Amino acid sequence: MKKKLAIDAMGGDFAPKSVVEGVKQAQAAFSDTEFILFGDEEKIRAYLSDETNITIVHTPDKIDSGEADPVKAIRKKKSASMVMAATAVKNGEADALISAGNTGALLASGIFVVGRIKQVDRPGLMSTMPTADGAGFDMLDLGANAENTARHLHNFAVLGSFYASNVRGIKSPRIGLLNNGSEASKGAPLQKEAYDLLSADTSINFIGNVEARDLLSGVADVVVTDGFTGNAVLKSIEGTASNLMKQLMTAINQGGLRAKLGALLMKKSLYSLKDSLDYEKAGGAVLFGLKAPVVKSHGSSNADAIFATIKQTHKMLETDVVGKLVQHYNAENGVAND
Amino acid sequence: MKKKLAIDAMGGDFAPKSVVEGVKQAQAAFSDTEFILFGDEEKIRAYLSDETNITIVHTPDKIDSGEADPVKAIRKKKSASMVMAATAVKNGEADALISAGNTGALLASGIFVVGRIKQVDRPGLMSTMPTADGAGFDMLDLGANAENTARHLHNFAVLGSFYASNVRGIKSPRIGLLNNGSEASKGAPLQKEAYDLLSADTSINFIGNVEARDLLSGVADVVVTDGFTGNAVLKSIEGTASNLMKQLMTAINQGGLRAKLGALLMKKSLYSLKDSLDYEKAGGAVLFGLKAPVVKSHGSSNADAIFATIKQTHKMLETDVVGKLVQHYNAENGVAND
Repeated sequence: MKKKLAIDAMGGDFAPKSVVEGVKQAQAAFSDTEFILFGDEEKIRAYLSDETNITIVHTPDKIDSGEADPVKAIRKKKSASMVMAATAVKNGEADALISAGNTGALLASGIFVVGRIKQVDRPGLMSTMPTADGAGFDMLDLGANAENTARHLHNFAVLGSFYASNVRGIKSPRIGLLNNGSEASKGAPLQKEAYDLLSADTSINFIGNVEARDLLSGVADVVVTDGFTGNAVLKSIEGTASNLMKQLMTAINQGGLRAKLGALLMKKSLYSLKDSLDYEKAGGAVLFGLKAPVVKSHGSSNADAIFATIKQTHKMLETDVVGKLVQHYNAENGVAND
Repeated sequence: MKKKLAIDAMGGDFAPKSVVEGVKQAQAAFSDTEFILFGDEEKIRAYLSDETNITIVHTPDKIDSGEADPVKAIRKKKSASMVMAATAVKNGEADALISAGNTGALLASGIFVVGRIKQVDRPGLMSTMPTADGAGFDMLDLGANAENTARHLHNFAVLGSFYASNVRGIKSPRIGLLNNGSEASKGAPLQKEAYDLLSADTSINFIGNVEARDLLSGVADVVVTDGFTGNAVLKSIEGTASNLMKQLMTAINQGGLRAKLGALLMKKSLYSLKDSLDYEKAGGAVLFGLKAPVVKSHGSSNADAIFATIKQTHKMLETDVVGKLVQHYNAENGVAND
């Protein structure tokens, strides 16, 4: 049976153009997949030539990126492209949801329309971030939750471990707890309690506390933290990287002819640095812990970034990571669970 | 009257050499200052030629950088260089304390030996961090506290505002609250409550929530956050910057002759980038809210970094920022204080 992806064609800064163009790359790459595009039929069709494996569901409305109250927006705009795509997943007409639109609205669509796996109190927003060695690491929660308990953090560890082993093919992924020092006694009560829960769970490979300073060196395969801290750390890393690249360009431009000639000679090296910082190549952010994959592509996604997100979602379906997760939780039913 | 600095000559990876050499730079720069060096007299004297304005207080013991329980260490090792330097400040024999030694022990020396300003529940650890435009911003708390209340965050804002206006000479410093979005309604209860306290205080220039992504672009002059998040953000920024510089060097080395030649031509530009990332030029981290300046220089400080920390501490004494802070709190006595 074909994999069916519900794609919000109207989400993101360059929609529907970049979304449709990303889908066309995926159409050429995956013959086992049907792409259901939700959005303005006419605008979508303008970028399509061959509609093999592509279905368009016309939606008269969309969620805006600047929606003041995203939760209210998805409740009111039942015929918005994102909401109808989520409803298709809920009704079993599609296997996964992809959008580059409003993050808050997608989180709400995921939780309230697609729905949580029963045993997962708080789904976590997770991204695979780049490391110097190219292996990358998964971090969650990146901000789906403003507050978390130690039990939520333990749940994030289980989710991250499942994702890293199934989707990224890492055997026994090293799980680290983000903390303000590496000693077991570190942190606020939240981290201390989480440390104990994680240490007691023999089903995961918990390696202890890790510090934010060591994340990009690949200190762990999965890094677990509360949504507030995760959001701050993600944005610090992104902000620092983009700021440094800007400063490097300024240094080159102000450095006169010598510097410019030097930069020209270094072009390939500088591009390889820029590439290694390219978060979009790694795909989107997964709201993990739901009954189906719900994946957020960056708002500024171009066609390549959309294709990367589709590839990632395709892998999630191919490996049936959500199905295995549900089995794992069902097997634990009746068994004491931390 | 001369300013008197109590300096832990045995703290840091390159002590006492780099400490004494930093003091010698300061000795040449500031004739109005007396430097009281605490540590192994013989080892200190080995690096000294001219002892004008320098006093050595021999201490037979020191706090190690790897002390498992720094609080216990400062209580037990009464004759350690750091503890004796702190005691000299407490007894009024010196006006400020500087150390590149064990951070936990210095925080404990500051709080338990030097002592808090009565109205400051929780002193904050604060650094001036570099921005692209060179202006920099102060952030606190960077980890003196694992947990903070909204009242602590409000106090950090007052402390940071005082420091930025007095020591850095910024008129009406823009105070931002680190949050997971810029809207007023963002964050966990801690941030929401802090937002209300900060908004209500007309004595500071509160500009609202700021995101970690925008810190290095200079979105605020002072950024206020709890110690756990502040520590994670600081380490994320440092880790990302050092990782990128390493990746840049790898890209150059793997780029062959062209890239190496290019890098040679770009040398000055690359150095200017490296310089702008150099946290040590901005001085040390201040444990602010104590009865006297207590400043932590980086553990790996060389002589230049020690000199930068001394210059910063000298400025704190020259501007009497701590005295003004005490006056501010005393003036508020009996007045309702958020």
